Amino acid sequence: MTANEDIIELARSIKLLVLDCDGVLTDGALHYFASPAHAAATDISIGLSFYAQDGHAIRMLMGSGVKVAVISGRGSLAFDYRMRELGIDHALSHVSDKGAALEGLLTELGLEPHTVAAVGDDLPDLALFAIAGLSVAPADAHPVVRSQATHVTESMGGRGAVRDVAMLIMHAQGALDEHLGIYPNSTVP
Amino acid sequence: MTANEDIIELARSIKLLVLDCDGVLTDGALHYFASPAHAAATDISIGLSFYAQDGHAIRMLMGSGVKVAVISGRGSLAFDYRMRELGIDHALSHVSDKGAALEGLLTELGLEPHTVAAVGDDLPDLALFAIAGLSVAPADAHPVVRSQATHVTESMGGRGAVRDVAMLIMHAQGALDEHLGIYPNSTVP
Amino acid sequence: MTANEDIIELARSIKLLVLDCDGVLTDGALHYFASPAHAAATDISIGLSFYAQDGHAIRMLMGSGVKVAVISGRGSLAFDYRMRELGIDHALSHVSDKGAALEGLLTELGLEPHTVAAVGDDLPDLALFAIAGLSVAPADAHPVVRSQATHVTESMGGRGAVRDVAMLIMHAQGALDEHLGIYPNSTVP
Amino acid sequence: MTANEDIIELARSIKLLVLDCDGVLTDGALHYFASPAHAAATDISIGLSFYAQDGHAIRMLMGSGVKVAVISGRGSLAFDYRMRELGIDHALSHVSDKGAALEGLLTELGLEPHTVAAVGDDLPDLALFAIAGLSVAPADAHPVVRSQATHVTESMGGRGAVRDVAMLIMHAQGALDEHLGIYPNSTVP
Repeated sequence: MTANEDIIELARSIKLLVLDCDGVLTDGALHYFASPAHAAATDISIGLSFYAQDGHAIRMLMGSGVKVAVISGRGSLAFDYRMRELGIDHALSHVSDKGAALEGLLTELGLEPHTVAAVGDDLPDLALFAIAGLSVAPADAHPVVRSQATHVTESMGGRGAVRDVAMLIMHAQGALDEHLGIYPNSTVP
Repeated sequence: MTANEDIIELARSIKLLVLDCDGVLTDGALHYFASPAHAAATDISIGLSFYAQDGHAIRMLMGSGVKVAVISGRGSLAFDYRMRELGIDHALSHVSDKGAALEGLLTELGLEPHTVAAVGDDLPDLALFAIAGLSVAPADAHPVVRSQATHVTESMGGRGAVRDVAMLIMHAQGALDEHLGIYPNSTVP
Repeated sequence: MTANEDIIELARSIKLLVLDCDGVLTDGALHYFASPAHAAATDISIGLSFYAQDGHAIRMLMGSGVKVAVISGRGSLAFDYRMRELGIDHALSHVSDKGAALEGLLTELGLEPHTVAAVGDDLPDLALFAIAGLSVAPADAHPVVRSQATHVTESMGGRGAVRDVAMLIMHAQGALDEHLGIYPNSTVP
Repeated sequence: MTANEDIIELARSIKLLVLDCDGVLTDGALHYFASPAHAAATDISIGLSFYAQDGHAIRMLMGSGVKVAVISGRGSLAFDYRMRELGIDHALSHVSDKGAALEGLLTELGLEPHTVAAVGDDLPDLALFAIAGLSVAPADAHPVVRSQATHVTESMGGRGAVRDVAMLIMHAQGALDEHLGIYPNSTVP
C-alpha cells in the first residue's frame, strides 16, 4: 500500500469504480489474426489479453459492495465475453464521449461524482478524470494521462493496475482485512 | 541457487509439488479471441500461454520421483491439453476451495503436509500455503501472496518461476547433479 | 517531451509520417497458429499485436492534418484489417525496396523529402531514413538502426513508439495543446 | 558488438548456425487456444511467436553464405510454416537427442564441429554446446545453460538473441559492412 494518506482518504468514499478496457484491463495490445488461405476480411479474429489477478480483485471488490463499471471506446466479442465472465453489469462499449457516458451512469445509479474512482490510460479517459473524485493511471499510461491522474499505480495496465486500485479501495474502506480473514494467517503487508 | 539454507532444508522433504495455473504456469494472461463476423458468443476462443523451460523442468522433476499436481480455480480446454502433454495426472480445474482440494489429494496420495511445496500467485492460493511445508510465490505474485510465501522466486510466473522451484527441489535432493550428468560438462552454477 | 530543440525544429516541417509495421506498429512479434488436427499448411493463422495508444495517436495526428503512410516488407490480412480500421489510405505491403516506395509516395503526394518523418526498427528501414528529413527508431530497434536515427523514442515498438512520435510532431506544430483543449484541465507535461 | 575478441575469433570460422526453436527463435511461450463450444480436444490450436528482426537477420546470414539449421525438441505446424517462410532447409523437429541430430547434420554437410555455432536456452541444448565450436545462450536462458555458454547475448530469446548472433558472425567474417553497404550511410556502431 504505497498510496499516501490523501489518496486513501479519497478512496474511502468510493462507491463506483469505472475502468477503461484497453491499456487498463489489458496491456493495450490488440491482437488480429487471420488465415492467408481465407482471403475474406470477415474471417479476421480479434483478441484481447486480460489478467487473472485483476479479475479476482474485481470480484473481491464487488463482493465488498463497491460497484464496477467499464467504459470502452472500442468493442469486441472478446470484451463482451470477459465482462459477462466477471459479472460486470455496466459494461459500455463503442463509447465516443466517455464523460457523457459516466454522467448517465451516475444519474442511473444515483451516485455523486466524488464517490467515483476512474482508471484510464489514454487521452479519451481524461473525460472520466474530470468527473471522478479519484483518478488513477496505470504505470504505462499515456504521459499526459499520468500527469493528470491523482494516483499512478505501481503496476502496468493488464498486469495488476486494476488489482492495485481494487486493493487500495478495499484497504481504505477496511474491507481488505475482513476479506483476507478467509485466508489463514494473512495480513496486509 | 539463491535460496538460503532454510529453504533448501525444507525442499529436501518435498514429495509433491502443487502448482496454481494462471500466474504460475502462465504469466496470468487470459487471451480471448472471436471473429466479428461470427456474432455467437459460443465462437469465443480462450487461450493460455505456457513456458517451454517450465515444462521441461516439470518433466525432469517428475523423472526424479517427485509428484506434480495442478490445482486451478479456472478451467479450459487449453489447460486440459497442456496438462495431458506434460503428463500431469493430478490436474484439478474449476476448484473453488483449494485447501479442501489439497487435503483430498494428500489423503489420496498418503502424503504428509510437510512433504508438499505449493506455488501460487493470488489470494486463493493462500489456502495452499496454509497446508504446504514450503510455500513459493513467483516474483510477480500478488503483494499479499509474496508476503506470505516462504520463498519468492527470481523468475516471474509463466517465465521460469516453476523451473526455479523444480531446480531448487532437485538441487536440495541431490537429483540435479545426477540429472545434469547426462549433459556433458554440466555443473550447477 | 524529452526530444531536444533540433528534433523539434525538424518535426515542425513534417507533413507525412511514414511507419514500418513489424517492430514499429507492433513489437515485432509474428504469431503463427495452427491446429494439429488440421494438417494442411493452409490452415495456418497469422497474427499481429497492435497497441491501442498508438492507434489513438495516429488518428489524432491525421486529424491535425499530417498524413500517415505505412510501408511494410511483409503483408497479412491482419495488417490490412488494422490499416483500414485506422483509416490509413497509403498502406503498402510486401515492399522489397522501401526507398523506391517512399519516392513514389512523395511524387504522388507532391511532398518534399524534408517534410517526411520515418519510423523504422530494422535494416530495410534505413532506405526510408536516407530520404526522410526526420528519422526515428523505437527504443528496441536494431542497434544499427538506432545508431542511424535522428531520434530514438523512449517507448518500444508496438508499446508507444508511434504515440511518442505523433505527440512530438503535434507538439512541435502547436497542434497538441489545441487538441488537448477538448480534455478539461489538460496540459502537456 | 560487445562480444570480446575471443568470441569474434571463434565466430570467424562458423559455417553453420544451429538454433533451438522455443526460447531462442521464440521467447519460449507456447500458446494453446480452444473454443469452449467445441469440446473435442482435437480442436486445440497451438501457436508460437517469432520475431521479425530475427527473421531478417537469418536471411542476411544465409545470404552471406553461412548455413542455418534448427533442431527442436518439439514440433508444430506453426514451426513448419515459419521454417519454410525463412527458407531453412535443415529444420528438425521432435528431436529427443539433439547431439545425435547435430552429428548427423555435420556428416551430411561435411562440416567440422569447430565451424558450428549453436544457440540454445534449455538443458537439452547442452548436447549441442558439447559439439559446437561456439555456444551461445540468450539473456533469459536457463541459468545452467547460461553458465555453460561461450557467449550470452544481450537480447532475450525471440527478442533479438538470434539477430545478435547473426550480426556477430557476419561482423567477424567481414560480411556485415559489405551487406550494410546496400543501405546508404550505414556503418556498424
